[in-house]
Amino acid sequence: MEINHTRFKEHIESLAEIGKIGETGVCRLAHSKEDREAVDVVRIWMEEAGLETHIDGFGSLVGRVEGKETDKPILMLGSHIDSQPYGGRFDGTAGALGAIEVVHTMKDQGIQPNRTIEVICFADEEGSRFNKGVFGVRGIIGQLEEEDLERKDKNGVTRLEALREFGVEPDLSQSPVYKQGDIEAFLELHIEQGPVLESQNKPVGIVSAISGPIWLTVTLEGFAGHAGSVPMHLRQDAFLGAAVITKEFNELVLSEGTPNTVGTVGSVQTFPNSRNIIPEKVEFTIDLRDIDLDARTKLEKKLYAIIENTSKELNLDYSISEDTRSDPRYCADWIKEIMKEEDEKLGYESPVLMSGPFHDALFMSYISDYGMIFVRSEKGISHNPLEYSEMEDLQKGVELLYQTALRIAQS
Amino acid sequence: MEINHTRFKEHIESLAEIGKIGETGVCRLAHSKEDREAVDVVRIWMEEAGLETHIDGFGSLVGRVEGKETDKPILMLGSHIDSQPYGGRFDGTAGALGAIEVVHTMKDQGIQPNRTIEVICFADEEGSRFNKGVFGVRGIIGQLEEEDLERKDKNGVTRLEALREFGVEPDLSQSPVYKQGDIEAFLELHIEQGPVLESQNKPVGIVSAISGPIWLTVTLEGFAGHAGSVPMHLRQDAFLGAAVITKEFNELVLSEGTPNTVGTVGSVQTFPNSRNIIPEKVEFTIDLRDIDLDARTKLEKKLYAIIENTSKELNLDYSISEDTRSDPRYCADWIKEIMKEEDEKLGYESPVLMSGPFHDALFMSYISDYGMIFVRSEKGISHNPLEYSEMEDLQKGVELLYQTALRIAQS
Repeated sequence: MEINHTRFKEHIESLAEIGKIGETGVCRLAHSKEDREAVDVVRIWMEEAGLETHIDGFGSLVGRVEGKETDKPILMLGSHIDSQPYGGRFDGTAGALGAIEVVHTMKDQGIQPNRTIEVICFADEEGSRFNKGVFGVRGIIGQLEEEDLERKDKNGVTRLEALREFGVEPDLSQSPVYKQGDIEAFLELHIEQGPVLESQNKPVGIVSAISGPIWLTVTLEGFAGHAGSVPMHLRQDAFLGAAVITKEFNELVLSEGTPNTVGTVGSVQTFPNSRNIIPEKVEFTIDLRDIDLDARTKLEKKLYAIIENTSKELNLDYSISEDTRSDPRYCADWIKEIMKEEDEKLGYESPVLMSGPFHDALFMSYISDYGMIFVRSEKGISHNPLEYSEMEDLQKGVELLYQTALRIAQS
Repeated sequence: MEINHTRFKEHIESLAEIGKIGETGVCRLAHSKEDREAVDVVRIWMEEAGLETHIDGFGSLVGRVEGKETDKPILMLGSHIDSQPYGGRFDGTAGALGAIEVVHTMKDQGIQPNRTIEVICFADEEGSRFNKGVFGVRGIIGQLEEEDLERKDKNGVTRLEALREFGVEPDLSQSPVYKQGDIEAFLELHIEQGPVLESQNKPVGIVSAISGPIWLTVTLEGFAGHAGSVPMHLRQDAFLGAAVITKEFNELVLSEGTPNTVGTVGSVQTFPNSRNIIPEKVEFTIDLRDIDLDARTKLEKKLYAIIENTSKELNLDYSISEDTRSDPRYCADWIKEIMKEEDEKLGYESPVLMSGPFHDALFMSYISDYGMIFVRSEKGISHNPLEYSEMEDLQKGVELLYQTALRIAQS
């Protein structure tokens, strides 16, 4: 391996101290004091790696090393270093520090890249503080609105105020920073946040695509009544409706979905939620994802039929609100090919897998080809202090990132 | 008809003014100022009916008219006049004021009963203030404990303090007031709180039994994971488990229950209850009732098998806690016979139906034969200001109560 294992490990461990909670947790909310402290430390590591740094108008930390051929589209690497309020040490951080390690290794090897390389720690990927994230990357690609600056956290602090406190005067007129054609490739390494690599006993995976979720909220309305006094055939039980739909939706995904289709009922509110009253109203969410848009569309139609038929059968009213609809975004074949070739040289035998969660890369995909590398997560635990990846796995992932970046930088 | 329609209607309407909320609601919490005001007003109506009154050591209002044969077991009539916090005008009140109307009608008719009659407005049937009710009736039959007096309402006021404020020095040593053999029959009229009479287009019903609920809380535990990144076959989705169990339980009750069996999942808590996280833990309640104990026992065993098999299939841990288990309590055949005979004379063609909810009568059943009369409830709405029964239906119910009480009083 060419990357410096010790340095990378030290960086991961040092950053885990900033905003540390408990033994293994991290809380570095976007634009917070802890976030700023992390940016200041990571900035030093960027400069040690030979990167010229600045913090952009959205709070992202950017490092740049000029290539020999300055007219070529650049290579961009990165992820984020902000965290969930009750988060772990690796989500985002692994990819951000891995990207710096890649450039530092080039410097150690005396390599000046042909293409200019930028390493970026995107501001507020997580979105938990202002209930909307991927702020930095949306700034880069021109997807911000004034509304983004007016959003408040739970203490009533607006993002504008938070960014000023962080030390940045936000400037939406800088957006977009990059357009189609400016960037040859965006590469992101990230922990898997799922159990697939672990189940296949592989340290590293090559991502095929980021799946697109449909988020629906289904509301069923029946009629409350005493659980003891309303005979079964006179009932309009909204929770029974939610149960039937959930079971049939699950069967639909299992029987007619692709191996990549996932369907989840994650949040359920029952009213009046009393043990001896028949539920009058239930609101529940549906999350349906696939990297195959046609497959997803086919299932979605059948899901609507399940909801309609169940409501009719149980004498319920229903409504469906669509909260999110994103298309799957595919990693560039040419980048995956480079990754597979380098992976073979490294002897990892990394499988190709999709990403269920979204990442900064999803947004970069609208202006650039992109590729992603996943690192095995223990039990798939994520957004939790128990999130864990073996250092050895992380180092292997960064090595693959290095070899891939080098190929693209020198192309 | 022999009862005084006008007087009964006026009493119902006057009492609805005490603790009135909105146009049609009532809030007369147990032992409250409003409860006391109601007791004072109803006491006057009792005395006008020829009853000698006192408030007993549990806060119940008792009226008594001596019979000619004082050595005979007495006839007791009654219900309650306390209400839910967001209750209606008829629950309890109809039976309490109906019982007074029965005695008043005897007086109007110049009838001195053979048996002594007591009319009782039981204290705190509803139980919402101290989260445990049927206090007055449990006092009568000897089912109180010191703990009952120590229970606090949400303002921290104990029942002991509340009763003193109400004007009663509680005295558990008075309990039980009556033993097996002291009471020939207890009769209670109550609104149905269900939709059966309405669906059969009948104003009045004769109750066969009060069904016994089993209350269970089922906890399922799986494993949380990102809704996008955990493939279907690696999931341990606790809400899916709750959905499957709810659907299969419903099918079980429909296919193998008696016409009287009811089964309800009323309350559901999902954790972490986030739209993009697979539910790790779900807690839900099961309410299963029947007046046929064998039928209920058979279903309960099959329900346990459903829970076990579903948990095994979906790789979930489960636990079941039993919160309540009451046996069904049957109305005395001889009282039902009298009711049917009197009903035929009145030409009501009242159906026989069971009671899903419990009543003061359930507790009286442990020391006395009992009978109940139901009055049609609009849409079965209960524990809500929208609760409604037609005055004409109530009057018909009280007339049947009168004829039944007269037969028993003179027997």
